[in-house]
Amino acid sequence: MNGKKLNIGLFGFGTVGRGLFDVLKRIGSKNVEIKRICVRNINKPRSVEAEFTDNPDEIFNDPDINFIVELIDDADAAYSIVKRALQMGLPVVSGNKKMLAHHIEEMIELQARYNVALLYDASACGSIPVIRNLEEYYDNDLLTSVKGILNGSSNFILSKIFNEKMSYADALKLAQELGFAESNPSLDIDGWDSLFKLIIVTVHAFGIYVAPEKIFTYGISNMNDDDIRFANEKERRFKLVAHVEKIADNKLIMCVMPQLISRNKYIYSVEDEFNGVVIKGLFYDKQFMFGRGAGGYPTGSAVLSDITACLYDYKYEYKKRNDSQLPEYTLDHTFRVYFRYEDVADLELVKFEEVYENYTSADYKYVVGRVSLANLHSVQDELRKRNIFIAAYPRD
Amino acid sequence: MNGKKLNIGLFGFGTVGRGLFDVLKRIGSKNVEIKRICVRNINKPRSVEAEFTDNPDEIFNDPDINFIVELIDDADAAYSIVKRALQMGLPVVSGNKKMLAHHIEEMIELQARYNVALLYDASACGSIPVIRNLEEYYDNDLLTSVKGILNGSSNFILSKIFNEKMSYADALKLAQELGFAESNPSLDIDGWDSLFKLIIVTVHAFGIYVAPEKIFTYGISNMNDDDIRFANEKERRFKLVAHVEKIADNKLIMCVMPQLISRNKYIYSVEDEFNGVVIKGLFYDKQFMFGRGAGGYPTGSAVLSDITACLYDYKYEYKKRNDSQLPEYTLDHTFRVYFRYEDVADLELVKFEEVYENYTSADYKYVVGRVSLANLHSVQDELRKRNIFIAAYPRD
Repeated sequence: MNGKKLNIGLFGFGTVGRGLFDVLKRIGSKNVEIKRICVRNINKPRSVEAEFTDNPDEIFNDPDINFIVELIDDADAAYSIVKRALQMGLPVVSGNKKMLAHHIEEMIELQARYNVALLYDASACGSIPVIRNLEEYYDNDLLTSVKGILNGSSNFILSKIFNEKMSYADALKLAQELGFAESNPSLDIDGWDSLFKLIIVTVHAFGIYVAPEKIFTYGISNMNDDDIRFANEKERRFKLVAHVEKIADNKLIMCVMPQLISRNKYIYSVEDEFNGVVIKGLFYDKQFMFGRGAGGYPTGSAVLSDITACLYDYKYEYKKRNDSQLPEYTLDHTFRVYFRYEDVADLELVKFEEVYENYTSADYKYVVGRVSLANLHSVQDELRKRNIFIAAYPRD
Repeated sequence: MNGKKLNIGLFGFGTVGRGLFDVLKRIGSKNVEIKRICVRNINKPRSVEAEFTDNPDEIFNDPDINFIVELIDDADAAYSIVKRALQMGLPVVSGNKKMLAHHIEEMIELQARYNVALLYDASACGSIPVIRNLEEYYDNDLLTSVKGILNGSSNFILSKIFNEKMSYADALKLAQELGFAESNPSLDIDGWDSLFKLIIVTVHAFGIYVAPEKIFTYGISNMNDDDIRFANEKERRFKLVAHVEKIADNKLIMCVMPQLISRNKYIYSVEDEFNGVVIKGLFYDKQFMFGRGAGGYPTGSAVLSDITACLYDYKYEYKKRNDSQLPEYTLDHTFRVYFRYEDVADLELVKFEEVYENYTSADYKYVVGRVSLANLHSVQDELRKRNIFIAAYPRD
């Protein structure tokens, strides 16, 4: 589309949609204009001068509109919109992690079939260009792991709890007021948002797609004051970490879970709504990318970067998917964990391959032991339901 | 060159050349092979199996060689090699900051004229893909500054001095032994290496080229124990910072100088041979990229990333150079500085626009004051020659 003017049909006018609108207005771009905005509730009062509609056809049937930006919450609706656009040959920028985490393989196929670009760097890590860097820069042979804090909202909450001794409920409320949290807080707090981003990142980092239900995912909603005290005593902090790593024999592990992070780690210092990603490779050791992971302006400007890339005919090439020796996903790996529980019956959920510490008192019990990802994955719903909290606890 | 096999003619077999050789051997790439290596001294014993020559013609006249990698120290020789290769239509990866900082405009012109790629991400910040990120990702309208530690060797020395109380001489010796330092230490210590990288970064960040002699450049070689004690008392550390920033009226300032960095800044924690770059923008606030900035393997793997990018027909587009409103370089800007001197005559070099602190004792004298870049630039050789040390000292 080099040199062409983009007339955007925008779906969604929440925090990020509004952020994009404001950023575009501020920079006064001549090549990019939001022509019409499709929203769920047309009657909601909005303080901006723009053409709104609640009918997707008014975007898709407008011959002037040559570009779609999809920034809505509803993953099913996002799927329909993005698919319809690609089938019409319209390039799309999408911010919907959940939709991509479920349908990315079909989306890759649609892009190839209709020779049209779908970009979504803004969907993972807000303003940090992590997807495009993994896609363009890190050679698969050299890359060993990508690990980081991919959800700004849960990290904001953890920061407030650990640095300002705020209660969990107050911290969550503040995150929502500031526009960092998804409208459904479970997405952030229970690790789903991190999981969706991890799946997208893994496609670009290692060339393989793993469906969400196959990956151990566990969040911070069960964390209590005993856990926080434990972390403080060890001079560590809980961080919600998404993790993909090549282990031996070209096998790949993935998981999202809290981790007790010690002070000498880069991500220890990732505070508030910031995201931080550590990329490790065989030869360059490790690199760290850090930036705002949530909020309307940072994410809006990341969406604009995707739009600008489309102006220059950029497409993801998904190079690593063509590797002859793609790694194979496995749950056959163990972690050293902190496991806080209530009843002896809770212990039966988990088969510890080794136990390093065992503490019991009337109202606080925990085990530090080694457990397999396969085990954790098979009981993850139960772990969430009971009064249990589990976190990776590496020796360092 | 998609799908083609690269037969590389390599110039230079120092730390980085050897690093590239080892990295390539380790990953066993089928598409990339070092066919012949041109070195200055063919008689030097080398412990690797490879075809060496001391005659550039044996590379340029070999019809099998379809790719040039230039990793030599000598900027004039590097200029001839890269120019000759581009004129022959051979793609080149270069690591020579000094050559690029002086000849980048001609190199851009040659790439366009002969429709051939010259990549040099490895030349700035070792393993951090900062150039390609600035080129591809950060929209000019949004970018306000790029600031960071671009020289691993001087940072290694400062780390050893501040963290391990090592003497300056011992720290420099250790840096050289570990292969972090340039063969001429003045390049690292006096800020020249940082300057060359800053010039390259600025071309990709803001679209304009500024010649080295126009930019205030000052290193750490005059730093003494009094200065180090001053920093420690203020709970700050000296870091050698390269800095480009858009100020008012679309003007751009650039400089390389030590800065007293307080604990709450990202670059305070960039230790040893690591590099760290803070990229600020209007809407995404700031981002931080961090990684190994020196050493054979990290830089060798960065060179390999450039080579791989060429395999996929990647070229820098130098998009920002085509902006209708390029910023204009200026020295008309003031900084708050710490200025340690010996004689009253030294004070005459600098015209302080404001003085905030003034300390004199028998053997230690300093002023904290505001001074213009133009002033500093006009006396930079004299500042280096006398027993004076100057560092930016922002209020924070």
